[in-house]
Amino acid sequence: MNTLNVELAERSYPIHIGSNLLRDPVALASLLAAHIRGHQVCIVTNPTVNALYGDLLAQGLGAASVDVFEMDDGESHKNMATYAAVLDFLVTQRHNRTTCLIALGGGVVGDLCGFVAATFQRGVDFIQIPTTLLAQVDSSVGGKTAINHVVAKNMIGAFYQPRCVLVDTATLDSLPAREYSAGLAEVVKYGVIADAAFFAWLEENAHDLMMKQPAAVAMAVTRSCAIKADVVAQDERELGLRAILNFGHTFGHAIESLSGYGTFLHGEAVAIGMVMAAELAVRTDLFHRDDAQRITRLLTTFGLPVELSSNNKLAPADMLDAMGMDKKVVDGAMRFVLPASLGTVEITDDVALPLLTETLEVFA
Amino acid sequence: MNTLNVELAERSYPIHIGSNLLRDPVALASLLAAHIRGHQVCIVTNPTVNALYGDLLAQGLGAASVDVFEMDDGESHKNMATYAAVLDFLVTQRHNRTTCLIALGGGVVGDLCGFVAATFQRGVDFIQIPTTLLAQVDSSVGGKTAINHVVAKNMIGAFYQPRCVLVDTATLDSLPAREYSAGLAEVVKYGVIADAAFFAWLEENAHDLMMKQPAAVAMAVTRSCAIKADVVAQDERELGLRAILNFGHTFGHAIESLSGYGTFLHGEAVAIGMVMAAELAVRTDLFHRDDAQRITRLLTTFGLPVELSSNNKLAPADMLDAMGMDKKVVDGAMRFVLPASLGTVEITDDVALPLLTETLEVFA
Repeated sequence: MNTLNVELAERSYPIHIGSNLLRDPVALASLLAAHIRGHQVCIVTNPTVNALYGDLLAQGLGAASVDVFEMDDGESHKNMATYAAVLDFLVTQRHNRTTCLIALGGGVVGDLCGFVAATFQRGVDFIQIPTTLLAQVDSSVGGKTAINHVVAKNMIGAFYQPRCVLVDTATLDSLPAREYSAGLAEVVKYGVIADAAFFAWLEENAHDLMMKQPAAVAMAVTRSCAIKADVVAQDERELGLRAILNFGHTFGHAIESLSGYGTFLHGEAVAIGMVMAAELAVRTDLFHRDDAQRITRLLTTFGLPVELSSNNKLAPADMLDAMGMDKKVVDGAMRFVLPASLGTVEITDDVALPLLTETLEVFA
Repeated sequence: MNTLNVELAERSYPIHIGSNLLRDPVALASLLAAHIRGHQVCIVTNPTVNALYGDLLAQGLGAASVDVFEMDDGESHKNMATYAAVLDFLVTQRHNRTTCLIALGGGVVGDLCGFVAATFQRGVDFIQIPTTLLAQVDSSVGGKTAINHVVAKNMIGAFYQPRCVLVDTATLDSLPAREYSAGLAEVVKYGVIADAAFFAWLEENAHDLMMKQPAAVAMAVTRSCAIKADVVAQDERELGLRAILNFGHTFGHAIESLSGYGTFLHGEAVAIGMVMAAELAVRTDLFHRDDAQRITRLLTTFGLPVELSSNNKLAPADMLDAMGMDKKVVDGAMRFVLPASLGTVEITDDVALPLLTETLEVFA
C-alpha cells in the first residue's frame, strides 16, 4: 500500500492506495476506524457499486450503525433533487454531528456526498472510497465538492476536505472500458501540466495500462494523486496555481454542457478539451505542434475521443457562449490554461478572440 | 463609528457599527469599496427592508452592476426552495466568481444569503448589512450560515465568514417593537454567558434601551458583537467554547420547532429557553435562584416571554423528542449550556433525565 499526504495544516489527510483494500477486512477496519469519531455512518453509493462492494465495506465498519443511501448513477443525478434527498435521509435517520459519510463510487457519488458532508449540520466528516479511475486520480482528492445547476456544471458546491481517501485499484477490474479510458484522460493531464517524465512513462506503458496491469495502474494512480496533492497543498481554494488542474476543462465543460450531460463522459470531454487547448496554444505560438500531436496520439491510444463526431458538431458561437457561463471566467475575461511544453502550462486571459474562434472552427 | 475585528487569520474581517451609515453615501461607498473585488453585486433582501434601505445601499455601490433578489420575509422562507431560487437568479444573471453578495435584512436574509455565498461557485464574497437587532448582535457575526430543514432548524449550512459587517443602528428605528425585544434576548445572553458587569449595565440601562436611546443602543450592540467576536475567534467551527453561544438555544430550538416556525420569534423562543436553562441549572445546584430571577426579570423588562402561554403548552415528552433531533446532540448524549453564575456558563452532558423532565414540567 502507498500512502500520500495532502498537506493542509489542520485539514491534512492521507490517501491510501492499494490493491484489494476492500477485500482485507482487518486492514480496512483499521484504516476506517482511524477516521470515524461516532457510531453512525452513512454510505452514499449507487446500485451498481453497492452490489459489488457494499457488503465488503460494511464488514470493515464493524460495530458502527450503518445506513446506506443509493442514488441513481450518472451526472444528471448530481443535482439539487438528489442533494435534498440525501439530506432528508440523514435527518430522518437522525444522524448527528459526529456522523461520518462515506462516498463509495465514482465522481458523481463523491462530489454529491462531499457537498452533503460540507453542509449537513454545517459540516460532518466524510471519507472518499473512489471506485472509478477518474475519481481515484482526480475528483476524490482535493476537496472540491459540488452539484450541477441545470445550465452549468458544478455551479453549487464547497471546498471541503475528506478525512481520508481509500483507493482500492482492484475496483478498476469491474469498471467498464469506456469509463476506465475516461479516467486515463485525467492521468494524461497530470503529465502535460506538471511532469514530462511521467508523460513519457505513460507513452511507454500505454499498453500495460490498457491491460490494467496492476503495477502500472498503481504507478499511474500514485503519481497522479501526488501531483494533485502537491498542487492542492499550495492552493486549496483555487486562487492561483490550482487553476492548472483545469487544463482542458474550460473547453471540456462547454462540450459537456452543450451536448447534454450524459453524451460524453467527463474524461472524454476533457480529452477533446485538452486537444482544443493544445491547438489554441499552438496557434498562440506557445506550444510545438509536435508536442500537441503527442498528446493527441496518447489520448487516442487510451481509447479517447480527440474530436467531435460528425453527428455531434458544436458551432463556435455556441461554444463561446457556453464558455462565457463557465466558472473559470474571471470578471468578464476568459481565462485559459495552455501548455507551454510537455510538463508546464501557463494561465492566461490574454487570448485573441479570432484565434479562439479559429481553433473552435477546426472542431466544428 | 466603532470598528471591531473578528480575528480569524486570513478570514479576519471588520464589524463597523454606527448610526446612519446607510444615510452617508460617501462613507458607505468607501466602506463597501474596500470589500468588493469585481463589478457585480447582488443584494439579497426582503420587500420591507428593500423599500426602506434598498436605494440608499444602491447609491453607496456606485459603478457596480447591481442585481436585487427580494425574498419573502420570515423563517419559513429560509428553506431549500428559496436557496435554489437565489442560485437560479445568480446563474441567470451570469454572476461570476468575483461577484459580491450583500445580505440586507434580518437573520433570515443573512443566514440564507450567507449560505448561497458559501456555495455559489464553491464560495463568493459577501457582506452583511443587518437591519434587525437580532442580526446585528448575533447572526451577522461569526460566519454561521444555514437554511432550515422541514423538521429541524439550521440543519443545512456552512461556516463561512463575510468580508465585513456593516451595522447601521439607525435601522432599528424602523424595527417593530416585538422584533427589537427579540434581539434584546441575545444581548441578555451575552451578559449571562460572559460578562456580569454588562448584565448589570443592562439592568441599569433597560429603560434607555427600550426607548432606543442611541448611545445605549450603540453600547449594547458593540459590547455584544465584541463578546461574540472574541468567542468566534477562539473557536470558529464550534468544536468547544463556541457552544456557550447556544445558551438557551437547545430549549429554544425545540420550542420553535414544536410550535411551528413563526409562532415565536427566534429571540422569544431563546428568552424562554434561557429561563428553562436557568431553572435546570438551579435544580442541578449549579446556579442561584436569585440570579435566575434576575434573568427572568430583565427579560420581562425587555418585553420578552419567560414562559409558554396557556394556549401553547408543550408536553415534556414532545420537548425531549424535539431536543433529540437538535444539532447540539453529540452522539446520543444531550449537551446543555448552563449558567454557573451571572457571567459564566458550563457546558455539560451530565444532566439527569429526571431533573430535565421536572424542569420541563414547570413550563408545561
